[in-house]
This record gives sequence, C-alpha cells and structure tokens, in this order.
Amino acid sequence: MLENYRLDEKRKVSLQDYDPNDTAGYAGKEDVAENFAQMKEQLQDIQERLYASKTNGVLVLFQGMDCSGKDGVVKKVLSGLNPQGFRAESFKKPTGDEAAHDFLWRAHRVAPAKGHITSFNRSYYEEVLITRVHELIDKKTANSRLKHIQHFEKMLADNGIVLIKIFLHISPEFQLQKINERMENPEKLWKFDPNDLEERRYWDSYMKAYENAFKATATKTNPWHIVPSNNRWFRDYLVLKIIVSALGKLKLEYPQIDIEYMQRQVE
Amino acid sequence: MLENYRLDEKRKVSLQDYDPNDTAGYAGKEDVAENFAQMKEQLQDIQERLYASKTNGVLVLFQGMDCSGKDGVVKKVLSGLNPQGFRAESFKKPTGDEAAHDFLWRAHRVAPAKGHITSFNRSYYEEVLITRVHELIDKKTANSRLKHIQHFEKMLADNGIVLIKIFLHISPEFQLQKINERMENPEKLWKFDPNDLEERRYWDSYMKAYENAFKATATKTNPWHIVPSNNRWFRDYLVLKIIVSALGKLKLEYPQIDIEYMQRQVE
Repeated sequence: MLENYRLDEKRKVSLQDYDPNDTAGYAGKEDVAENFAQMKEQLQDIQERLYASKTNGVLVLFQGMDCSGKDGVVKKVLSGLNPQGFRAESFKKPTGDEAAHDFLWRAHRVAPAKGHITSFNRSYYEEVLITRVHELIDKKTANSRLKHIQHFEKMLADNGIVLIKIFLHISPEFQLQKINERMENPEKLWKFDPNDLEERRYWDSYMKAYENAFKATATKTNPWHIVPSNNRWFRDYLVLKIIVSALGKLKLEYPQIDIEYMQRQVE
Repeated sequence: MLENYRLDEKRKVSLQDYDPNDTAGYAGKEDVAENFAQMKEQLQDIQERLYASKTNGVLVLFQGMDCSGKDGVVKKVLSGLNPQGFRAESFKKPTGDEAAHDFLWRAHRVAPAKGHITSFNRSYYEEVLITRVHELIDKKTANSRLKHIQHFEKMLADNGIVLIKIFLHISPEFQLQKINERMENPEKLWKFDPNDLEERRYWDSYMKAYENAFKATATKTNPWHIVPSNNRWFRDYLVLKIIVSALGKLKLEYPQIDIEYMQRQVE
C-alpha cells in the first residue's frame, strides 16, 4: 500500500493525480485505531534501540501548504517519543545570522546526530518554494539549489541518517474551510495569519514548485511521500506507517556487552 | 607568479614536483618586507568593505603536516584584522556530538556568514587524510567524501563565500628539524607531541592522500594553493598575496546611502 504514496525516482509527477481525500479504502478513524496504537508502541521501541545502537539517525521532514497540518502531525504521531532522543525543529523566515549564511546552514546545524530523531516543520525546501513562487530567485538559482539539496541529503544518508520526506497534500477547498474555522473560533484565532489568504492566490504556482522539487530530489535512498491530508485521521495513520516502515528496515541492535568482563570489574 | 602555486582544475599532481624551499627568486625576508606591510593594510581595507557590503564571506582553509606552520601563518598573516568580522577556527579530533554527526557538520556550523572572514586550521579534509592514511575508512568512502566536499564547497561558493584553500608544503627534513627544536627549547616544548614522531612514518601515505584530495577538489571556483613553507617568511608572504589577490577581484562597494533622505530624517 505504501508504494502508492512513495516517489522514489526523479520523474515528473502531477499533484493533480493525487486525491487529497484518499483514505486507501478505510472508512474512518475507527478502522485504523488499533493499528495506530500498535505502531506508536513500535516506534517507541525503535527509538530506544536507535538511541542505544547509535548506528543511525532519523530526520522526518514535513512540507505542505498552510493548514495542511504540519504542527498537528508532529503532535499526533511523534508525541510519546522519549524527548531525550527527539527534537522538533521548525523553520520560519530566515533572519539575521541565518540569512547571512547559505540556505542549508541553519538546517544542517540542527540535523540529528546518530541515535537521535529530529522532525523538521518546513525546511530548506522553502528556499525553492516560497522564494520561487514570489520570484525572489530565478529558475537557474532554484535548480542549482535543488542540486545542492540532493547532494546534502545524499551526504546525510551516507552518514546513516534516514531521511523521511513527507508532503502533506490538501485541496484549496479544504484549506479555505480551515482558515474559516480559525477566524470563527476564538480558540483557534491565534493561528490565523492574514498572509495565508494572500498566499492562496499562488496555489497553482506552489504546486508547480513542489512538483519541480519532487522531480529533482526524489531518489531511492531519499524518497518523497505524498500523504493525502484532507482527512486528518488518515494523514496521521499514513505518516506513522511510513515512519515505522522505513525504520523497521534498519538493523538496530542493542550494543553487545561482555557480561563476564563486566562482572570481573565489579568483583 | 601566483599561478605557479595554484591548482585550479581536477588533475593528478605530484607534490614532489613542488620544492618546499622555493622562494620565487626572493633572497630573504627583506626583499618582501615592504610589500608585505602594504598588503596587510590592503587586507584591512578589504575587510572593512567586506563587512559593510555583506555581499560575500571569506573562508581561508589551511592544511599541512605537523610543524608546517598552520598556527604561525594565522598569527602572522591574519593578525591585525578587526576581530568583529574575523574568527579563527581550528579542528581537533572529532569528539562526542561532533563524531555523532556527518563529517561536514561541525565545519558548516562555523562557516563564515556574509561580511565575515573565517580561517580554518585543519578542516573536513582531515576526514579524507588521517582517516585514509590509517585506513579507518576505505577508498570508496574516501572518494564519496571527496565528492561531498566538492559539492559542499560549490554550495558555499554559490552563496558568495570565497574559499581560499592553502596547503603548507614542507619537507620531512624540515619537519624533523622543527620537532628537534621543540624538544630542545623549553619555551617550545609544550608544542611537542610524541604522536608527531609516529605520524612521520606515514609521510608518503599522507602525500598520496593530499594529492588525491587535490585531484578531486581543485576547481576554477575553489582552487588549491600549494605554498612552499620551508622558509616561513616566504610562506607568510605568499599566503598574504594569495588572499589579497583573491579578494581584490571582488567588487566590494560600501552600501549606497541616500544622504538627503537621512538628513530629512534628522531635521
């Protein structure tokens, strides 16, 4: 089932071919609840072994339009991890020292060490998305950056970092509905940013920029995953499944301890 | 004259073809003293304009065998810079958090921002030198890292970082003489490391690893410079000349200020 959502080679894709309402045949949250709970336990177990073995690190990178649920998915899927080995990073508009460095700098600084899991809410991909949509950079610069991204991600992989790249795919209608909810609900109003309405006008441009990024950076080692996100329960389920499946392939063994040697030390 | 010492394309070179005693025809320190003093002033002026314009950053990277004078050259050539815009970084054996990340991570963290000059005493190149000489990594890993280095340096260049890569070239005889001086002189004894004697046995291996690194990473944009360093006065002179020449090519303008506008604000 997962392969339907995975892009693992550089090829042209059209996001129109992916239905944001898709739920892989599941009717509702109840259908996946048990499996979801099981997988959360599995993930905790994986994290423990990851932390002990220190052979790999994990970077889960989330991209998506406003209201696609980047905050929500981190909360729903990655809560329950041991905070000692997990960190949630998020990237806003680069300022000061960040803007004075190359576009990968601030992300590389907070990339996971071996043994650790880090999530990125937005990432260096913004530097080929929002910047390109608003023509702050030309096509040539965008393509050069996409190449640098691919090289950078390859280097992380060579160092044992499992990179899980997730695009939360929503429809413009769903976004509008969420924006309206934010404006109408006093408890959600703080999340409303008038800028979001402005950015909606560039929807098609954004989709093009995303498609371009997928084409340049989806590889067998570092694939992209397109997660239908109009249904939040399915979004959470699929993201968790993608993560558990990717990490399940790792051989994470607890370090071998020579018990007899240890005992002699104690005696 | 500088082109004799510059490697700006990927090609096989033999360090044996470079004489560490070479002084480009100069007889002694006196011959270059005036020019040296002039260039130091030029460099200060360049730094000021660099800091004001913030269009570029500068990374001067020093590699060389023990006793080749990496500390000395930073002191002699880069002293006098405004410390606000200059930082000298040096890299020891990676430990803890550093070793738990990819091999470029700790260097990227301290790479210069635009407007700034940074010097590296040793660098990520150690991860294809000492590690390769002692066979801690295989040839394939070394070649993969060299490719990552080239990509990383290209990305810095794309971001306006002028990278000046300098190899301080000494002879094994010169090194032995320096080691002996360190052992005999109470004021220099602290610099002596018994390990240096051990590493001398791998001299030829080191030269091969360096040649391999030059071949993989010398490009028109990010060339290497092989600086004959048996004569320290010539080493300092040549390094300064390389830096001033590279930065002299930049168009560093003070930002345009609209004086009339400023005056209206004050009135």
